[in-house]
Amino acid sequence: MSNAYAVILAGGSGERFWPLSTKARPKQFISLFGGRPLLSLAVERLEGLVPPERVFIITAEHLLHDTAEAAWNIPRANIIGEPCKRDTAPAIAVACGLVHGRDPEGVVCILTADQLMSDVETFRLTLADAVTVAHHEKAIVTIGIPPTCPATGFGYIEAGAALNTTRTVTPFNRAERFVEKPDAYTAARYVESGRYFWNAGMFIWRTDTMLDTLRAHAPDLAALSESVAEAAHDPEALDAVLRGTYPTLRAISIDYAVMEHAQNIIMAHGAFGWDDVGSWPALHGHFTADAEGNVIVGACETREAQNNIVVSEDRLTALIGVRGLVVVHSENATLICPLDRAEEVKKLIRRIAARPDGEKYV
Amino acid sequence: MSNAYAVILAGGSGERFWPLSTKARPKQFISLFGGRPLLSLAVERLEGLVPPERVFIITAEHLLHDTAEAAWNIPRANIIGEPCKRDTAPAIAVACGLVHGRDPEGVVCILTADQLMSDVETFRLTLADAVTVAHHEKAIVTIGIPPTCPATGFGYIEAGAALNTTRTVTPFNRAERFVEKPDAYTAARYVESGRYFWNAGMFIWRTDTMLDTLRAHAPDLAALSESVAEAAHDPEALDAVLRGTYPTLRAISIDYAVMEHAQNIIMAHGAFGWDDVGSWPALHGHFTADAEGNVIVGACETREAQNNIVVSEDRLTALIGVRGLVVVHSENATLICPLDRAEEVKKLIRRIAARPDGEKYV
Repeated sequence: MSNAYAVILAGGSGERFWPLSTKARPKQFISLFGGRPLLSLAVERLEGLVPPERVFIITAEHLLHDTAEAAWNIPRANIIGEPCKRDTAPAIAVACGLVHGRDPEGVVCILTADQLMSDVETFRLTLADAVTVAHHEKAIVTIGIPPTCPATGFGYIEAGAALNTTRTVTPFNRAERFVEKPDAYTAARYVESGRYFWNAGMFIWRTDTMLDTLRAHAPDLAALSESVAEAAHDPEALDAVLRGTYPTLRAISIDYAVMEHAQNIIMAHGAFGWDDVGSWPALHGHFTADAEGNVIVGACETREAQNNIVVSEDRLTALIGVRGLVVVHSENATLICPLDRAEEVKKLIRRIAARPDGEKYV
Repeated sequence: MSNAYAVILAGGSGERFWPLSTKARPKQFISLFGGRPLLSLAVERLEGLVPPERVFIITAEHLLHDTAEAAWNIPRANIIGEPCKRDTAPAIAVACGLVHGRDPEGVVCILTADQLMSDVETFRLTLADAVTVAHHEKAIVTIGIPPTCPATGFGYIEAGAALNTTRTVTPFNRAERFVEKPDAYTAARYVESGRYFWNAGMFIWRTDTMLDTLRAHAPDLAALSESVAEAAHDPEALDAVLRGTYPTLRAISIDYAVMEHAQNIIMAHGAFGWDDVGSWPALHGHFTADAEGNVIVGACETREAQNNIVVSEDRLTALIGVRGLVVVHSENATLICPLDRAEEVKKLIRRIAARPDGEKYV
């Protein structure tokens, strides 16, 4: 992939995996899977596919240090800190500008930092095929994940006609439309139809295609992208662009800003075991449970305790007679809640943040 | 109390308050109550009643350092480490010998290190009265606690005729008999009768009375006591006596060895809010619960969580939707179990001790 660049979006707020993840250490830094931060796994998946000097990471300013540590082989100048949170569209405009400034014909792969893929080889093949198609078709290529359940937590992509391409192994379709997170009924209909795929937030396109699209649907972001392209080789100038522009930008997702309006979007089938690992209960899919259904990461002894998820890496947890609990210890906090109420942690975090010592914990 | 000495028995195994208490830091060292170790409270209760140089502490050898720290105002030479565990009777024989060697007419108060008394002034008055009675009656004086519930975890003392004494404020009775921990039905009958009191393991007597009693019922312990009396002023000789004798002794409680056989036992009424604080659920009696019935020591935020006991002094615990749990964190372990199963922690501790890294936790 001689003209391919990768940009990993690594912002993240860290609420769903509290207390292991926090504002200061969001989800992409948690090391539950193979003992490696999710961000490190995201970088490693690109090895041999995109050379490190062509990999960029866009993160929050306060995460720059930890990001550089987790992505140790990526040049430090390729790791960009956003001065403030503005959702995905501005970050992607920056990404696009960074690549365009180096290679106006480059193909940029927008990837995420905090998801798992069980079949890395297929992911790499899919990405290589997507780059090929993006290059030749001058299209926006997105990756649609074949849904394994009627999830209501993702947006969906409706697939249209199959694309005939002899250059690739991966199946491609026209993307008819992007739809927002559905209700449960709609999600079930989507999955039954076989025509809807999860929107995994990954996009591949030539930077010139992207700039044209931004100019058509989000001129302010196109302007940002062009300023970034001009400053791409001068870190101080780039810093000035970001600091000058970001505070004035609206926060908007790439789906709203571009995908729901753009034409010529092609969807690659992403059959590589993608998993958002969206909350504590999702750990059940990634670890082998003991004979009583307990998923244990770290040190735990149980007595008549069933179907619990325990993350106890720096201490021993002793469970007696409890069922269906999530028990997670971080360095200075512990969460205990039923599996089916893990979502409520977001509400409790607000209360914790409001404590006089709240900063310590969230 | 010019002729009074106190001996605090501070052995303890530390299972019931695991993980806060451990073999290395048994119950008398836990600082849940007013931030002070129970042993420190036991020492402080004697202030102005028995001068520090007349207070002795008998503990386990491996606890000497922490004992000296918690009982910082007691002369180091008064803190004796037992070479091995042999239950209460040998420790009391040693205590008796230590005092007898200094003052053959001394009155020794055998006290415990790991209980609470809510009305310290009444305790002090009761103890002073018990010393007076022990001195004049040449009797074994024990303190019986008026039972507040039909507890099955304590031995009981059956009270006989009231003692007429003009010298004291505290009521005294003859002690008819000592009975072992009863079953629930028997305990209920005991409490109804009004004639049974909890045996709190506190005994007051002249050392000459005690030596006579030991000679009659436990000659081996009388011999130990006499050897200790002879060595009482020579730390090396005392050490040699303990090391030479202890391994050969049977482990036996003072109740079995002496109290169930001895005559002339008098019981003081101990109406000073004595509490054994026998297990985690007992904390409900010593802390004010929040509006949802949660007893919280340390930092905790809850959401729809009721009637839990949380000890979280070095970390924040977040509870969502759980009820009736004990959650206790120590430096390196956490216990989570329903209140009514807290007793089972003893069984789990055995499993934890058997882990390759078990020593760290128990």
